[in-house]
Amino acid sequence: MILAKRYKHTRTQTLNICKDLQPEDTVAQAEEFTSPPKWHLAHSTWFFETFVLKKYLKGYKEFNHDFHFLFNSYYESLGARVARNQRGFLSRPFLSEVYEYRNYVDAQMESVFENEPGKHLCDTIELGLQHEQQHQELLVTDTKYMFSQNPLMPKWNPSLFYADKELPAIVNWLSIEEDVVTIGHEGLDFCFDNELGAHKQYLQNFSIADRVVTNQEYLEFIAAGGYTNFSLWLADGWAWVLTSLSKAPLYWQKKDENWLVFGFNGLEKINPCFPVMHLNYYEADAFARWKGLRLPTEFEFETAAKRYPQYFEPAVWQWTQSAYLPYPGFKIATGAVGEYNGKFMINQMVLRGGSIATPRGHARSTYRNFFNPHLQWQFSGIRLVKNI
Amino acid sequence: MILAKRYKHTRTQTLNICKDLQPEDTVAQAEEFTSPPKWHLAHSTWFFETFVLKKYLKGYKEFNHDFHFLFNSYYESLGARVARNQRGFLSRPFLSEVYEYRNYVDAQMESVFENEPGKHLCDTIELGLQHEQQHQELLVTDTKYMFSQNPLMPKWNPSLFYADKELPAIVNWLSIEEDVVTIGHEGLDFCFDNELGAHKQYLQNFSIADRVVTNQEYLEFIAAGGYTNFSLWLADGWAWVLTSLSKAPLYWQKKDENWLVFGFNGLEKINPCFPVMHLNYYEADAFARWKGLRLPTEFEFETAAKRYPQYFEPAVWQWTQSAYLPYPGFKIATGAVGEYNGKFMINQMVLRGGSIATPRGHARSTYRNFFNPHLQWQFSGIRLVKNI
Amino acid sequence: MILAKRYKHTRTQTLNICKDLQPEDTVAQAEEFTSPPKWHLAHSTWFFETFVLKKYLKGYKEFNHDFHFLFNSYYESLGARVARNQRGFLSRPFLSEVYEYRNYVDAQMESVFENEPGKHLCDTIELGLQHEQQHQELLVTDTKYMFSQNPLMPKWNPSLFYADKELPAIVNWLSIEEDVVTIGHEGLDFCFDNELGAHKQYLQNFSIADRVVTNQEYLEFIAAGGYTNFSLWLADGWAWVLTSLSKAPLYWQKKDENWLVFGFNGLEKINPCFPVMHLNYYEADAFARWKGLRLPTEFEFETAAKRYPQYFEPAVWQWTQSAYLPYPGFKIATGAVGEYNGKFMINQMVLRGGSIATPRGHARSTYRNFFNPHLQWQFSGIRLVKNI
Amino acid sequence: MILAKRYKHTRTQTLNICKDLQPEDTVAQAEEFTSPPKWHLAHSTWFFETFVLKKYLKGYKEFNHDFHFLFNSYYESLGARVARNQRGFLSRPFLSEVYEYRNYVDAQMESVFENEPGKHLCDTIELGLQHEQQHQELLVTDTKYMFSQNPLMPKWNPSLFYADKELPAIVNWLSIEEDVVTIGHEGLDFCFDNELGAHKQYLQNFSIADRVVTNQEYLEFIAAGGYTNFSLWLADGWAWVLTSLSKAPLYWQKKDENWLVFGFNGLEKINPCFPVMHLNYYEADAFARWKGLRLPTEFEFETAAKRYPQYFEPAVWQWTQSAYLPYPGFKIATGAVGEYNGKFMINQMVLRGGSIATPRGHARSTYRNFFNPHLQWQFSGIRLVKNI
Repeated sequence: MILAKRYKHTRTQTLNICKDLQPEDTVAQAEEFTSPPKWHLAHSTWFFETFVLKKYLKGYKEFNHDFHFLFNSYYESLGARVARNQRGFLSRPFLSEVYEYRNYVDAQMESVFENEPGKHLCDTIELGLQHEQQHQELLVTDTKYMFSQNPLMPKWNPSLFYADKELPAIVNWLSIEEDVVTIGHEGLDFCFDNELGAHKQYLQNFSIADRVVTNQEYLEFIAAGGYTNFSLWLADGWAWVLTSLSKAPLYWQKKDENWLVFGFNGLEKINPCFPVMHLNYYEADAFARWKGLRLPTEFEFETAAKRYPQYFEPAVWQWTQSAYLPYPGFKIATGAVGEYNGKFMINQMVLRGGSIATPRGHARSTYRNFFNPHLQWQFSGIRLVKNI
Repeated sequence: MILAKRYKHTRTQTLNICKDLQPEDTVAQAEEFTSPPKWHLAHSTWFFETFVLKKYLKGYKEFNHDFHFLFNSYYESLGARVARNQRGFLSRPFLSEVYEYRNYVDAQMESVFENEPGKHLCDTIELGLQHEQQHQELLVTDTKYMFSQNPLMPKWNPSLFYADKELPAIVNWLSIEEDVVTIGHEGLDFCFDNELGAHKQYLQNFSIADRVVTNQEYLEFIAAGGYTNFSLWLADGWAWVLTSLSKAPLYWQKKDENWLVFGFNGLEKINPCFPVMHLNYYEADAFARWKGLRLPTEFEFETAAKRYPQYFEPAVWQWTQSAYLPYPGFKIATGAVGEYNGKFMINQMVLRGGSIATPRGHARSTYRNFFNPHLQWQFSGIRLVKNI
Repeated sequence: MILAKRYKHTRTQTLNICKDLQPEDTVAQAEEFTSPPKWHLAHSTWFFETFVLKKYLKGYKEFNHDFHFLFNSYYESLGARVARNQRGFLSRPFLSEVYEYRNYVDAQMESVFENEPGKHLCDTIELGLQHEQQHQELLVTDTKYMFSQNPLMPKWNPSLFYADKELPAIVNWLSIEEDVVTIGHEGLDFCFDNELGAHKQYLQNFSIADRVVTNQEYLEFIAAGGYTNFSLWLADGWAWVLTSLSKAPLYWQKKDENWLVFGFNGLEKINPCFPVMHLNYYEADAFARWKGLRLPTEFEFETAAKRYPQYFEPAVWQWTQSAYLPYPGFKIATGAVGEYNGKFMINQMVLRGGSIATPRGHARSTYRNFFNPHLQWQFSGIRLVKNI
Repeated sequence: MILAKRYKHTRTQTLNICKDLQPEDTVAQAEEFTSPPKWHLAHSTWFFETFVLKKYLKGYKEFNHDFHFLFNSYYESLGARVARNQRGFLSRPFLSEVYEYRNYVDAQMESVFENEPGKHLCDTIELGLQHEQQHQELLVTDTKYMFSQNPLMPKWNPSLFYADKELPAIVNWLSIEEDVVTIGHEGLDFCFDNELGAHKQYLQNFSIADRVVTNQEYLEFIAAGGYTNFSLWLADGWAWVLTSLSKAPLYWQKKDENWLVFGFNGLEKINPCFPVMHLNYYEADAFARWKGLRLPTEFEFETAAKRYPQYFEPAVWQWTQSAYLPYPGFKIATGAVGEYNGKFMINQMVLRGGSIATPRGHARSTYRNFFNPHLQWQFSGIRLVKNI
């Protein structure tokens, strides 16, 4: 059965990402917006236990009653949980116990697959796999962040899904003419609820870059005083510059006139041809303004990505100028799963595309990623748009 | 000359609002998001001094050099200024000196008007008057807030522009069919830069209420446990409920099973037929969800307000489901005036309509007001929308 | 009757201090540790109303019931009160009303005096007067602080009790030999409860400076890198230097290589022969360590002040190396008055002496003043001690 | 050689305490005032490397240059270090590497011992051993705290130095008459610099309890409303009660009318005859006031402990009414070791005695322990004193 295979494959991918992490690596939480690797490993398993096994597998015996509390992320309807900023206090359960938990749940899931699950159950399992893929990317971003806070600057090979690729020096512009287009997911493939409600949208003329912005281009922005010129920044962005004392993307540091960047190989020279990444919305917006250009709306991005897929290979998530809001007719699912997306539709900006850490096949042209505008720790970069 | 008359009229209106305020009333700043009345009186004057007199009136001598620093609000291009949260520390200049400042500037403005100002100068003066009108409303909201923090619960008559009106019990629904509509300001009348760039927008079918939500309806929401049911709230909204311990709109308090509200007449019984107000976005959104309905987008609101103006008389500002973002082709003006609107286009939600405290003739169907979603101190309420 | 005269004299002194303050000046609270002048004027009156008139004057009718809540400082036994950091939000009652309140209470106090008050009542009135004197000094320190936050740097003449005096360049050392001494108040004169419980204390040999430290000496400390050398500072002091970015005493600023100081005459050149003041404990302690000396204990100070009164005229309060703790046998009075001193005996350091702003006759050799070690806004300075 | 044996013994004791901790347990830091076990293991080793091996062992090659930065606690003179609140972000070095570090340093220390170290070097090694013993106790208190934050409530056997002992129900009072006593360390045995400067102190008559306060007695305080009666508390203590919402000592919780306590055996019923512990100064002080008694000064405690050693066996640290301040003639040692004690002599209260987690032979009658008055996580309790 295909779903069973996908299950096995996806669950194994998570283990592959973590294979070089030692028990100590899986405990620390360096910022509230990250989670410890052990927590990701357990929480993605908790999803299957909570939404599949407990509901659909007759006689299922939960692995450990405390885990229900420990590894709930934000589901209010499922009761109390460990505070978001205290996930790093949990030395127990041990990493080995979390792996046992994974094995136990995987074994029970085999029984589910043997019973020929119906449509609704299959949909829930599919959601669990997509959810696990999201946590695969978070495992990478959060662990990278945690290592970056360590003066030892550890190296790490998380077996990423894509490699950084050098980009051409020249940008070409892809033109799209004024039109009424359809936005949102159509068809029967999996998508998240926030993509549903395909609807018409009116687009003006615009042209969009055929590649994302490079480190080289961003270095020029810095050299031109980008971080010291308030007129390039949104008011909240300028306040962020002043209080965070930022002078460059996250993970960059200057040493003897050279810019270095912390990454999976430790601290290295910056490759000017790689996509610039680990920018927040304010930085992306300021860069665009400095160029006399702007960020795309998510509708422009989606339309361009559908028409010119060859220029939209995953490299970095790309900030759009659209706030994360419900599509017309958006409906919240009943039950705890309804808390998956809808309740976050405020105070966040949409990112589109996909990154080197996004599992193959996970993202698509209608996929809506979203983060608070001040956050930099995702693999987030810039694609520019021109009015015409 | 008409503009000169409007100048005089608008400036006098500001004095009218403040006529019952004593020197002590004009100093205090009870929250960072408010400003003391003395500051509003001076800052709206500073605008004319800075953008008109210093630039266009030959030989103009500034009233007091320190005022340039003291009464700059947020214009980075005009240099340093008193921190936003320290405006309440300024016992000096005295209120009488601020009134002298107003008189001085008004007298100098007469010279400007005598010189037959050109188009660009007239536009700047017009902007100054619109700006002053915005501060008239802020004078009312901020002073109301300041009085609300005083256990003496002072009464105050700010000579509002509109009176609260009782609303009918029944809601009728105004239908609008799927269409491509034009959004944004057209024509030659004054508008702010954020309304410019009239452009097409695709609307789905919807119907919109012919009046705003009443206190009675909101009381039902409270009685039904609205503030204790997480499933009605956005995640950030629920966090706000938990940390602010809110159980009702701002200024409401329960005494012996009765809900009272603080207003211009001190503490009073709530009138169930008045529009509910002093809600933040989270409350407006939760109420709509409880009703099984939703808030309008700003495009839906604008379209309905243009087609059915009779149902859109100013009463309260109405939260829309749209984030405050630039229209296609939005351009930032050069110079300090360019800081007026554009740099705030992030982390805020659009409100439409106008309130009892909005000066007559100030708002219009394309007018975009905006505040952070957690703020309640504006005259802000709810209009509901139904999908069809 | 002498007490009646003293009452009148003290109450008038308070008015003298405030005679140049306008209504606006009496509202603002620039920091939680200060109070607005209007509040001091009312609270010192509230003390007489609460502890004298309501208890001892038959048929007394309170001036305004709300004032009981508004002007309670910290007496838990007297019920709820305005939060410490919200005293600056109270535009009402107006200054004129507070003066009426003072007049009303003063008139009622005359009836009390006419009734020939008994011992216990006289003691309470005396306490009220001493309390008012403490608030006279706070009126000066708090208003000075408030003005210092205003870029206009207002001048002010608070009719201080003593004038700054130039100090001699040379320090002479007063020797005191190892001894068992008596510490604490003896005799029948007024003293606060924290001075009671005269008891023996063993002192080692020491000698103490015959004057306080001058601005000149402190300038040398700064010039020698005092604020950049961690080894001179207590750990909490060094943390304070790093977070406050302090480089000099409060109110000092450097302009073109000159040190200026904000005071009652606005911004002025520093007089090198004046006592250095507005230091916190950390600064006093660091200066002493830099000199290879130390601060006195409060027992050493008291003993020296009793033996050599001529060298201990009020100029600045002097930080001692003693924590504010109860004397052996310290007893808390019953009733609300028991909250006067005892409950503050933690986390504070003792200051001895008296300042230019201390009312004449208020302080004495056994007087214990006390503040948190990080606070600079009092007239606080340094006297040095040498071990022998 | 005796010192070499003591070295080996002490270093082994540290390992014994940690023998049941797994790698995951050694990473987490649940509060800034605690440190992760791995950090304690490394920092106590760093002390020998920094102050002994690098200075005295010719040709010593440091184990890992980064450790100098990673495991410095607070020595400003030794340069930059990891911020106090970021010790829990360090997944690396692994626990196994820290153990290697310990082995490496221990092996090098053997060479030191073989070279017949001189007096000054021996003193430094002795200081290192005393320092390690202090961290043994912190290892226990910090790990207990970390486990307490875990909903799994792990059990742990840290091989404590003393066992909890049941106390008799009756208190007897040990009398001490007014006297001039000597305070501070005399003789040639090891002591910390803060105990030096033996000096005379005048004591009044008092009597002191022959045992510490029990859980039973503290339960009575709680039952009598101790945590709801402001008149029992210091002002800062009452503020702590209100903001922390404390209703009992740290680690206590009420379940179905029973008080339980978290300890090394997980969550258990409280033994009423055990010493009450994990109180802060405010709680100890409030309890004493409720009893109509008081805490001892450190001078009273020391004198009683010298005269009646049989009643002063280690059980819990006992809060004294003395602030942590220098003795007359206290001198700060030169070099980094001078930062050991002196710079902390502010804002802390002295505790005397010793606890079940204090290594045998570590404390003595002149030993001065010290913590901020709001901290509860030490094994801290109460001994009462009566004036006579």
